[in-house]
Amino acid sequence: MTHTISRPQQIPASVDITDDEQATVDVAALGELLLGRWADVRRTARTLAGRPEVQKIEGLTHTDHRARCFDQLHYLVEQRAVHRAFPAAFGGNDDHGGNVAGFEELVVADPSLQIKAGVQWGLFGSAVLHLGTGKHHEAWLPGIMDMTIPGCFAMTETGHGSDVASIATTATFDPATDELVIDTPFRAAWKDYIGNGANDGRAAVVFAQLVTGGVNHGVHGIYVELRNADGTFKPGVGGEDDGVKGGLNGIDNGRLHFTDVRVPRTNLLNRYGDIAPDGTYTSPIASPGRRFFTMLGTLVQGRVSLDGAAVAASKLALTAAITYSTQRRQFNAASDLQEEVLMDYQRHQRRLLPRLAATYAASFAHEELLEKFDGVFSGEQDTDEDRQDLETLAAAFKPLSTWLALDTLQECREATGGQGFLIENRFASLRADLDVYVTFEGDNTVLLQLVAKRLLTDYAKEFKGMDFGVLARYAVSQAADRTLHRSGLRRVAQTVADTGSGKKSAAALRDEDTQRELLSDRVQSRVADLGNALRGARGMTQEQSAALFNRHQNELIEVARAHAELLQWEAFTRSLRKIEDPGTREVLTRVRDLFGLCLIEKDLAWFLMNGRLSSQRARTLDGYINRLLEKIKPHALDLVEAFGYGPEHLRAAIASGAEQERQEEAAAYLRRHRAAGDTPVHEKTLLARAIRAEKAKKAGKARARR
Amino acid sequence: MTHTISRPQQIPASVDITDDEQATVDVAALGELLLGRWADVRRTARTLAGRPEVQKIEGLTHTDHRARCFDQLHYLVEQRAVHRAFPAAFGGNDDHGGNVAGFEELVVADPSLQIKAGVQWGLFGSAVLHLGTGKHHEAWLPGIMDMTIPGCFAMTETGHGSDVASIATTATFDPATDELVIDTPFRAAWKDYIGNGANDGRAAVVFAQLVTGGVNHGVHGIYVELRNADGTFKPGVGGEDDGVKGGLNGIDNGRLHFTDVRVPRTNLLNRYGDIAPDGTYTSPIASPGRRFFTMLGTLVQGRVSLDGAAVAASKLALTAAITYSTQRRQFNAASDLQEEVLMDYQRHQRRLLPRLAATYAASFAHEELLEKFDGVFSGEQDTDEDRQDLETLAAAFKPLSTWLALDTLQECREATGGQGFLIENRFASLRADLDVYVTFEGDNTVLLQLVAKRLLTDYAKEFKGMDFGVLARYAVSQAADRTLHRSGLRRVAQTVADTGSGKKSAAALRDEDTQRELLSDRVQSRVADLGNALRGARGMTQEQSAALFNRHQNELIEVARAHAELLQWEAFTRSLRKIEDPGTREVLTRVRDLFGLCLIEKDLAWFLMNGRLSSQRARTLDGYINRLLEKIKPHALDLVEAFGYGPEHLRAAIASGAEQERQEEAAAYLRRHRAAGDTPVHEKTLLARAIRAEKAKKAGKARARR
Repeated sequence: MTHTISRPQQIPASVDITDDEQATVDVAALGELLLGRWADVRRTARTLAGRPEVQKIEGLTHTDHRARCFDQLHYLVEQRAVHRAFPAAFGGNDDHGGNVAGFEELVVADPSLQIKAGVQWGLFGSAVLHLGTGKHHEAWLPGIMDMTIPGCFAMTETGHGSDVASIATTATFDPATDELVIDTPFRAAWKDYIGNGANDGRAAVVFAQLVTGGVNHGVHGIYVELRNADGTFKPGVGGEDDGVKGGLNGIDNGRLHFTDVRVPRTNLLNRYGDIAPDGTYTSPIASPGRRFFTMLGTLVQGRVSLDGAAVAASKLALTAAITYSTQRRQFNAASDLQEEVLMDYQRHQRRLLPRLAATYAASFAHEELLEKFDGVFSGEQDTDEDRQDLETLAAAFKPLSTWLALDTLQECREATGGQGFLIENRFASLRADLDVYVTFEGDNTVLLQLVAKRLLTDYAKEFKGMDFGVLARYAVSQAADRTLHRSGLRRVAQTVADTGSGKKSAAALRDEDTQRELLSDRVQSRVADLGNALRGARGMTQEQSAALFNRHQNELIEVARAHAELLQWEAFTRSLRKIEDPGTREVLTRVRDLFGLCLIEKDLAWFLMNGRLSSQRARTLDGYINRLLEKIKPHALDLVEAFGYGPEHLRAAIASGAEQERQEEAAAYLRRHRAAGDTPVHEKTLLARAIRAEKAKKAGKARARR
Repeated sequence: MTHTISRPQQIPASVDITDDEQATVDVAALGELLLGRWADVRRTARTLAGRPEVQKIEGLTHTDHRARCFDQLHYLVEQRAVHRAFPAAFGGNDDHGGNVAGFEELVVADPSLQIKAGVQWGLFGSAVLHLGTGKHHEAWLPGIMDMTIPGCFAMTETGHGSDVASIATTATFDPATDELVIDTPFRAAWKDYIGNGANDGRAAVVFAQLVTGGVNHGVHGIYVELRNADGTFKPGVGGEDDGVKGGLNGIDNGRLHFTDVRVPRTNLLNRYGDIAPDGTYTSPIASPGRRFFTMLGTLVQGRVSLDGAAVAASKLALTAAITYSTQRRQFNAASDLQEEVLMDYQRHQRRLLPRLAATYAASFAHEELLEKFDGVFSGEQDTDEDRQDLETLAAAFKPLSTWLALDTLQECREATGGQGFLIENRFASLRADLDVYVTFEGDNTVLLQLVAKRLLTDYAKEFKGMDFGVLARYAVSQAADRTLHRSGLRRVAQTVADTGSGKKSAAALRDEDTQRELLSDRVQSRVADLGNALRGARGMTQEQSAALFNRHQNELIEVARAHAELLQWEAFTRSLRKIEDPGTREVLTRVRDLFGLCLIEKDLAWFLMNGRLSSQRARTLDGYINRLLEKIKPHALDLVEAFGYGPEHLRAAIASGAEQERQEEAAAYLRRHRAAGDTPVHEKTLLARAIRAEKAKKAGKARARR
C-alpha cells in the first residue's frame, strides 16, 4: 500500500476568503437585474403563468392533456399573450425580444403549453410572417393569430432529423395547372414529429425541395391545407400519431405524408424564392447555400426561447429544492444535538450550489442573447455578421442551458430523495417535459459542431492575410511551446512560482483575471490545436477529409462547449458591473467565482496536462471550492428568492413550508413528553448506565483493596 | 492569443493496438457467461417477461396501471414465478440467489411489476420470513405467497427517509390486554412512500420503536392488519395516496398513520426480540446496535436485486440504441458518398461504447455480488464478516449500477434524437421508472458513505496492532512522499521514464497491471489521506468531529465510488479468465481496457496532481481511447447480442429493422429515378457547371491571347 499525502492541510476558511457575515443580498434589486430589459413583459407573463387555467394537471392521459392544451391556446389568444412579435398592422406589437421573453415564462405553467404555443405562433406563424409576403400575411396571419387556423411547421422528416438540407419531400411546379405538387416519395420522406400534426393542424407550412423546369432550387416553405373542418384529411394527405412521448404529452405530434397534393403556385412562401407563372425561378439571394441558411435563420427564435425556458426551469427547481433544504433535517450528527438541515451537508452544497451558480451564468448569458436577437429581428442591428453572431450564440447557449436544466432538475430530484420523485413536487414532471429540449430545434451536439466550425473559420481567417514571415514565426513559436511542454519546463517554471503558500495559490484562482485567462486560453489553445490537426484536410479527397474531421469530432464538440462556457462566464462578469449594492455584488462575485472555478475543476486534467496549472495550485482547488460553498450557503435562500417565482409558480409541496410545520409539531411533542417525564428510556441508555455503574463498582472495590 | 501544441501527433491505429480484423466474438458462449450461475432461472424469467400479459402498456393513467399490476401479481403466482426464496415446506425452493436472478429479469416486462412484486414477496414476505418465527410463517406465509394477503413493508416515515433508527412510530406493550399499541404520534411519523399502501395492502409489517415497561428497545417489525375485505381501513388506521410519481406508476404508494391500533402481542415478529406476557423483553442479540443492523440486514436483498435490474435495463437500452445506430444514416460526409451510419461517428462511439463497457463491468460485478448474497442467505458462507462484506458490496455496486442505468438510458435516448423520446422506443419510459432506483432501498449517496466508513474502519484496523516504531516509519514514509510531491521529483522522474515514444506510454496504459495499479493506488491513497485528515476526530467533541467529517463528506463519497469502480474492474478482469475462445477474449479485453481507461480519464486530474501519471502519458489517453473505440465498433452488435434480449424484450420500434427497410426503399427509389434520368438537377450543380464553363472560357481566351 502506497501511503502518500496528496492533499494540502486544511486552510481555515477565513484566511483567503474575506469574511462577509455582514454582506446581505438586496433581493429586490437583484431580482430586477435578473428580469432584464423585458421586465414588464416577464411580470405580465408570470402573472398569467400563475393562473390555474394555463397550468398542467398531472396524471392526465395524453389524449386529455392534448385537449386541455388546445383549449389553453385559445385562452392565450383571449389574454392577448402571444401576439407581440406580429406586425402592428395585424394587432401585434412588432416586439421580438419581448415576445420571446413572455413566451419563455409559459414553461412555468406547462412546458407542453409553451411548446404548443411555440408551434402555432413561433414556428407556423413565424414561417408565414418571415418567409411569406404581403398576400400571405393578409390571407393567413389573422387566422393563425386567433387560432382559427391551428397549424404545423412540417420540416423534419423520418429519414432526416437535424439534416434539413437533405429532406426528400418535393414541391414540383406544374405549369399546366399553375400548381405546386407536393409529394413524399417514400416512407423516409414522411414529415415526422410535427407538432399539431396528429390532430389539431388544419394547415401547415410544408418544407420541400422546390422543383421547376427540371431544376431543384432547394428547400422552400409552402402553405398547404391539411384537414377539413371536421378534422378529416384533405385528399392526398395522410398521417399517423406519434403517440405517447417521454414528456410534452400536451402536444399532438404526428407524421404526415403527401401524395400528389396540389396547391396554387402562389402558396409558395416567396420572400426568398419565387416561381413565375411560366415556371421561371427567381430569388433575391443568388447563392443557394446562403438562401437556405437565410430561410432557416428564422428558426433561431426557437433556440433563443428554449435557452430562456431552460433557464426558467432551472430557477424553479433550485428555488424548490433549496427552500426545502433549509428546512429538512436528516440524520442527527449526535443524538443530543439538533439534526442538521440538508443544506448544512457539504455534499448537498456540492450538489445544489454549483448548479445555482451555473443557472445565474446561464441567465445573464441568455439576457445578452435575447438582446442580440432583438437587435437582429427588429432590424436595428441586422448585418450579416450580426445574424451569424446571433446564430453562433444561440447554438452555443441553447445546448448548455438545456443540459443544465435536465441536470439541475435531476439533481434536485435526487437531493430531495423520494419526495423529489413525487409528481406533487414537479421535478420529475418538468424533467420529463424538458428532456426533448436537448435534441429538438437543433440537436445539442449538432449545434455545438456548428459553433466549432465557426471557431475554426475565425481562426483560419486570422491567418489568411498574413505573409509567409509571420506564419513562419508562428510555426517557430509553436515549436518552442512544444519543446516547453515536452521538457516540462513551462510546468516547472509555474511550479516554482507557486511554491510556498497554498493560500496564495487559492487566492490567485479567485482572481477574475486569472479565471478569464485560464478559461480563454483553454478555448484559444484548443482551437489552435484543432486548426493544426485539421490543416491537412485541404489536400485530401472529400472522403479523407471527412474521416480526418471525424477523428476529431469529440474535440470539436468539447472546444465548442469550452467556448460557450467562457461566454457565459463573461456575461456573468459583465453583469456584476451592473450591481450597485456592495453586499449583493460581493455575494454574486462569489457565485461567479464558484461558477468559474467549477468550470476549471471539471476540466482540470486539461489545465494540468498542458502546463496551465501546477499540481500544487490544482490541489488547492477542491478545498477552495468547499470554502466558497460554505460562504455562499447563508445566502442561498436570497439567491433563489431573487429569481422571483412565487408559490403559484413553484407549486411544489416540499417548498410550501409543510416540512417546517411537521418538524415544529414533532419537536413540540417531544418537548411536552420530556417535560412530563413519560418518554421511554432507550435500552442503549440503560446499557450505558449499567456499564458506568459496573465500572464505578470495580473502581470502588479497587480503592477498597488499596 | 497563445498558440501551443498540446496534443501528440495522430498515431495510426494499428501501431499500438494489435489488428484483430479476424477476431470474432462467440456470441453464444459469451451469452452463457453473462447469464451466469442462475442461467436457467434467467431463461425462464425472460420467457415470462416476453409475454404481453406481464408487459407495461404505455400511456395508461396511474389508476389503470395500478390495477393492471395488481392483476399481474396474481398472474405471477399462477406462473409460479415468485416463490423461489420461500421455504420448501411452504412450496418454495429455498433458492435465494435464483430468486433474485429471476426477479431482476421482470424489469424487462415492466419495472412497476418488478417493484410491486418486490414489495409483496421481497419486502413484506421476507420480513415475515426472516424476522418472524414458525407461528408467523404458518399463519401468514401461504396467504402472502398466493396473494390472498397483499401487504406492505411500512418502514419509511415522512420525517425520516434513509434514517430508519430515528423513526417515531411506537409499538407499546399493554400488559393489561396483552396487546401492542401502534401509534404515529405526529404527522412526521406517518409511514410514507409505502408500496401497496394507497390501495392494495390488507396487512403490513409496521416498523416501530418497541416499548415495554417504559423502556424503548429500538426498531422492531410488527404484523398489523390495515384494511377490511372491502378495502376500508381498520379502526385507528388511516392514510392517503402519494399520487402520481415520476415513474413506477403501477405501484400504489401511500401514507399510513396509526392511532391506538391494537394487535396481539404475538404479532411482534420475534426472531430477534420478543416480549413475554409479563412484559419482559428478551433478545438473542445483546447489543441493541447489532440487533438493529441484523434486522435491517434482510434489506440487502432489495439492494442486490436493484443492482441486477439496473444492469438489465442498461443492457436493453444499449441493445436498442446500438442496433439502430448501425442502421441509421445521417448527414452525408460528401454529397456523392453514402451517408455514414451513426455508429461511424466518433462522438456517437464516445456516447455509447464506454457505457457498453461499463455495463459489462457492472454485469460481471453483479454476478459476483449475487453469489455472495446466495452464500450468506443459503447459510453456506454466513459469518459476520461475510454479512458485512455482502452489505458493503451491495452498498458499493447498487449506486454505480443504478446511476449507470439512468445515464445509459438518457444517453441512448439523446443519441437517437427525437426517436429516442418516443415512448414506442422505451428509453424515456424505462428511465422514468428507474429514476427512483437511485434513492430508494438506500439512497445512493448514503450507501456510498457506508462504504467509505467501512474503508476507513479497515484502514484504522491495519494500524491498530502496530507498535510505535512501525507508525514512526509510516510517518516518515509519508513525509518523504510529501517532499517528493512538493518538489515534483516523483513526477519529474516519471516524466523522464515516459520521454520518447508516445506509443509506448499508450501501450503501457493498456497493460492490465498498470490499470490495476493506478486504480487501486487511487483508492488506497485517498483512504490514507482521509484517514489522516479525520485522525483528529478522536480528541474532539461530538459536534466538532461531526463538523470535521462534514468538511470531508464529498471526498468520502468520492473514495467510495473509486473503490466500487476498482471492484467492478476486478470483477471484469476475473471474468476475462473464464473466456476460452481467443477471439472473444481479445475483444472483451479491449472492452475491459476501455472501461479501465475511461475510469482513469474521468479522474485524470487526480492522477496528474498526485504524480501518478505524467502529462506526456496522460496526453496520449484521449487518442488511445478513440482508437479503442474504433476497434470495438465492429463488434458492437455482437456485444449487445450476447446480452440475449430478443424483440419481445426490446419492444423498441427503432430496433425492429424498420429503419433499414425505409432506407432501402429510399435508395431503390433514387436508383430507379437516376436510371430513368428524371431526377431534377440541383441549382447548385448548375451553378458549379456555369462557373467551370466561365473559367474554361476565360482560360481559352487567355490561351488565344498567348
